[in-house]
Amino acid sequence: MKNENLLKKMKENNLDYVIISSKYTLYYFTGLWIEPGERFMALIADRDGNFHMILNRLFAVNTKINFVYYSDTDKPIDILSGQIMKNARIGVEKTWQAKFLLELIEKRNDLKIINFSDKIDTIRMIKDTEEIRKMAEASELNDIAMDKMIELIKNDVREKDIVKKIPDIYESVGAEGISFDPLIAFGKNAAEPHHESDNTVIKTGDSVIIDVGCVKNRYCSDMTRTVFFNDIDDLGMKIYKTVYEANLRAIEKVKPGLRLSEIDYAARGYIEDKGFGEYFTHRTGHNIGIEVHEYPDVSAVSEIIAEPGMVFSIEPGIYVPGKTGVRIEDLVVVTEKGCKVLNSYTKDLIIV
Amino acid sequence: MKNENLLKKMKENNLDYVIISSKYTLYYFTGLWIEPGERFMALIADRDGNFHMILNRLFAVNTKINFVYYSDTDKPIDILSGQIMKNARIGVEKTWQAKFLLELIEKRNDLKIINFSDKIDTIRMIKDTEEIRKMAEASELNDIAMDKMIELIKNDVREKDIVKKIPDIYESVGAEGISFDPLIAFGKNAAEPHHESDNTVIKTGDSVIIDVGCVKNRYCSDMTRTVFFNDIDDLGMKIYKTVYEANLRAIEKVKPGLRLSEIDYAARGYIEDKGFGEYFTHRTGHNIGIEVHEYPDVSAVSEIIAEPGMVFSIEPGIYVPGKTGVRIEDLVVVTEKGCKVLNSYTKDLIIV
Repeated sequence: MKNENLLKKMKENNLDYVIISSKYTLYYFTGLWIEPGERFMALIADRDGNFHMILNRLFAVNTKINFVYYSDTDKPIDILSGQIMKNARIGVEKTWQAKFLLELIEKRNDLKIINFSDKIDTIRMIKDTEEIRKMAEASELNDIAMDKMIELIKNDVREKDIVKKIPDIYESVGAEGISFDPLIAFGKNAAEPHHESDNTVIKTGDSVIIDVGCVKNRYCSDMTRTVFFNDIDDLGMKIYKTVYEANLRAIEKVKPGLRLSEIDYAARGYIEDKGFGEYFTHRTGHNIGIEVHEYPDVSAVSEIIAEPGMVFSIEPGIYVPGKTGVRIEDLVVVTEKGCKVLNSYTKDLIIV
Repeated sequence: MKNENLLKKMKENNLDYVIISSKYTLYYFTGLWIEPGERFMALIADRDGNFHMILNRLFAVNTKINFVYYSDTDKPIDILSGQIMKNARIGVEKTWQAKFLLELIEKRNDLKIINFSDKIDTIRMIKDTEEIRKMAEASELNDIAMDKMIELIKNDVREKDIVKKIPDIYESVGAEGISFDPLIAFGKNAAEPHHESDNTVIKTGDSVIIDVGCVKNRYCSDMTRTVFFNDIDDLGMKIYKTVYEANLRAIEKVKPGLRLSEIDYAARGYIEDKGFGEYFTHRTGHNIGIEVHEYPDVSAVSEIIAEPGMVFSIEPGIYVPGKTGVRIEDLVVVTEKGCKVLNSYTKDLIIV
């Protein structure tokens, strides 16, 4: 089905080839997981639906796909060029390195290179039953792990102390690893949406943002909870209630046929009404799957229409600089009639 | 000096602008460390030597450089396009994402896009005194850490047990983090140059490859030692001596004016003479700096000439499939008369 969707998009765009260069998309279409680092790797799909790969011999694998291996002393773009017919129309992926793309363009000015990013993104955007099952499992593990992380919040703990224990927590619950660098932020630090966890020690009244995710069967989870340490002041309480309600309103809104911008607005409009609009400084969410950030965003300008099988985050937040921050994030999968939340950790206010 | 070198290369190539997109090159020229993930980020240098940046507001920083901030609802390529004069010649970096590059090409067919990768690489390739001092410090920490890692080799230990303790070891010696995922490989696993450390338990006679590096002041170290557990057989001994001698011969060869392929051959030719040529399956080394793999390689086809200030690895290895593997890796900096080895951990045979 995945391959048929690719072939269909290739025909719609009258493409002779698609060059797949991302390890994630490679996994999506073939089940092969290869990490070639900065070295050239390409899965080439032709219009007859055949796949073959060009790969450095160092990463040789046993599989049914046809391989052309090169070594560190070969020029892989020459090999690629030799396999592409004259005047071909070629779709390339969004993350392909400019170094390879420009080398191909320089060598072969007969080719027509097409930005095929959004087409591949659109295929990967709709998860099948098997993918949704894997993502639900990753989110279940995230629920169990969240409990163990919150248990670590106690007097004198530093942000980094918690961060360092997270890989072991995920391993103990059966995950394969983290899906992104865990974010633990206390108090004022929680007001910076992209804070890097440091040696800050916890203090009474701090909000504690826990934004974490794991990988299971190569699929990602991603969840945020915000708890408070010992106490909560009026501002904290007001912000928490507002973010909580914004999270619920956006989730209730999700159903097929809606523009993602409308889902964003369900959270953003409510936060604006409560007077915190200027402190909600990011998009409401992002799609997720094999990669933790996939296409498209759930943002104020997203014209994309929700469809069954899309999986994205709903993660409104309020960040008052120098004071405190709160974010509450769930993953939802769009169903025929609405949506299903993949994680189930409580969103009730927790004061540790 | 760094900026002057850039301006000189721009003039040589008659460029109006260079677009710097890699976080490493951004750090190199500005000292700013920004991690925008998949979001658009560009440092734009013009022919008058002025820098300005286009950056998502989420990553706002305080600095002397001029910034144009965009938000998640803006189209950053439109902003970039609006700042570039008609018919400009623009150099781009090797890792710039095809999605941005193709969007710019589609929007502005008046522009001439130049693959500027090797020029920026060539500038970054020559380290100044300050950079060499930082790299020496990172390698000194790697020496201290290696001792602590070898201490972990004992009965019943699994590869992963050691890997998991490495971040703490580096933190305890004062490093900022790891420069790449540490590789620990026992016995047969050591015969796969790109083995992923797993739950394999150590056994008597195993070779143990320890390929590790840390970051200090944003610069990388990288060293490999191979020790044996309890015992060593004749094949292991023969391979160890051969790799050791190949490592020494390549290091002795290093001096300004030599092609890097000749340095590769100093190791490769010796290993071939000893009958293990087919088992040395990779390049002899790679340059290193802010990134662990920088341009160029020390390989059989590298025509690049060694110059003072280049820092690269010398890492010959022999991998006999199904049996054992040995690699010994040092970092060297090319000096006026020869080279200096940055790490000093013993290469004498160690049987733990």
